[in-house]
Amino acid sequence: MKLTVLISTCLAFILSARAEIVSKPVEYRQGDTVLEGLSVYDDATQDKRPAVLVAHQWKGLGSYEKKRAEMLARLGYNVFAVDIYGKGIRPANPQDAASEAAKYKENRTLLRSRVLSGLEQLKHHLLTDARKIGVIGYCFGGTTALELARSGADVAGVVSFHGGLGTSIPAQPGAVKAKVLALHGADDPFVPPAEVAAFEEEMRKARVDWQLVGYGGAVHSFTDWDAGSDNSKGSAYNEHADRRSWEAMKQFFAEVLK
Amino acid sequence: MKLTVLISTCLAFILSARAEIVSKPVEYRQGDTVLEGLSVYDDATQDKRPAVLVAHQWKGLGSYEKKRAEMLARLGYNVFAVDIYGKGIRPANPQDAASEAAKYKENRTLLRSRVLSGLEQLKHHLLTDARKIGVIGYCFGGTTALELARSGADVAGVVSFHGGLGTSIPAQPGAVKAKVLALHGADDPFVPPAEVAAFEEEMRKARVDWQLVGYGGAVHSFTDWDAGSDNSKGSAYNEHADRRSWEAMKQFFAEVLK
Repeated sequence: MKLTVLISTCLAFILSARAEIVSKPVEYRQGDTVLEGLSVYDDATQDKRPAVLVAHQWKGLGSYEKKRAEMLARLGYNVFAVDIYGKGIRPANPQDAASEAAKYKENRTLLRSRVLSGLEQLKHHLLTDARKIGVIGYCFGGTTALELARSGADVAGVVSFHGGLGTSIPAQPGAVKAKVLALHGADDPFVPPAEVAAFEEEMRKARVDWQLVGYGGAVHSFTDWDAGSDNSKGSAYNEHADRRSWEAMKQFFAEVLK
Repeated sequence: MKLTVLISTCLAFILSARAEIVSKPVEYRQGDTVLEGLSVYDDATQDKRPAVLVAHQWKGLGSYEKKRAEMLARLGYNVFAVDIYGKGIRPANPQDAASEAAKYKENRTLLRSRVLSGLEQLKHHLLTDARKIGVIGYCFGGTTALELARSGADVAGVVSFHGGLGTSIPAQPGAVKAKVLALHGADDPFVPPAEVAAFEEEMRKARVDWQLVGYGGAVHSFTDWDAGSDNSKGSAYNEHADRRSWEAMKQFFAEVLK
């Protein structure tokens, strides 16, 4: 019997050691535009599983989103990090990032088309259980995730981390299928109280199942490890708010993707 | 080996069957006033454990608080449900409840004394690990829990469920030791947006570690099973917000009482 236990333990160890997070660039199109997303999953099994779409910050899909996608894959989700800007378009500095992001913030129809084409990639992936899809996004990606919800996309839940909450095409009553969770830095100067209040009123009128968490002491980019620690700059990493918001997302997905 | 497994399983079953939630009324005093709280715990072990103080709604300590205390005891906490009003003072109707609650809402010093005397009961209970004390409260009890935090009491965390958020003695910068979690019905007509904004500003100025969750579609009393389901009355049970807020509390205590 002791030998059986030993063999089982070794087998479990070998299997868990074999499990590996795979990241694969995926080229796809929206209209004539070539996009390059990232497919991320744990290849320990080939079972279909709940899936999460990740929308990027204003510098485009990069190492930050890859890391978050890997964290989600380790939680058991099949993940696709969407590319909104187009293959190779990865602004290197804040000025270029702001200008690139503005193209989509000012054209919500285009933004919706781009994120929806990423959603299609995830929906048709072999490992995706298409009845269980969630969406998350950071900063510009939070705005993108909310825009996807407003479009009426058939996803279970959408999470915005320090995303801008406004839109030029407000949600229509009864049109939003996704449950919505907005995770907000209560001291974020780029998403001021009036924008939060307008978002809440939009969600209310549209009869969305929504929640908003305000994290005291947190400013913009509170989950971004590279954002420094100086709140006076308006963007800064906040370890408390990062950890708590990740737990809130996990709890939310445990509910809506179960 | 199989016999050993069988014996262990039986033993575990017998032990878990023995575990029982005990509820004992406890008489104590604040000044000359006799109060009657409720001590609630799982008597499966005699180990010291993290502890939670429960503050009651406007009708005084009753079956609702007992049930919540039992839910907390099942999670492994040593619980004391505080009595703010005094032994036997349990208003039977909303008018009397409003008038009784007003005595304390209008005299925050007295409210603080009453809740602090309950905290002392819990702190000195044999099963309490005094370094790990949390506080929760519902409606008037949420207000009470926040008032305890403002007093600078040495507790790890305070949770308000649909509590009134205002006070006549605002928190002073640096004085609040407890981390604060306010769980708020975003459509609560009794705790309107201006009161939420003032609370956030108070927490900000006092440099409190605070969070506030707004639950869309939830009005006052969203955790109260007896509050009906008609939002237009301003108070109503909301199953989503009840479940989510309980999970948020569990997550918060997992962090601050670990």
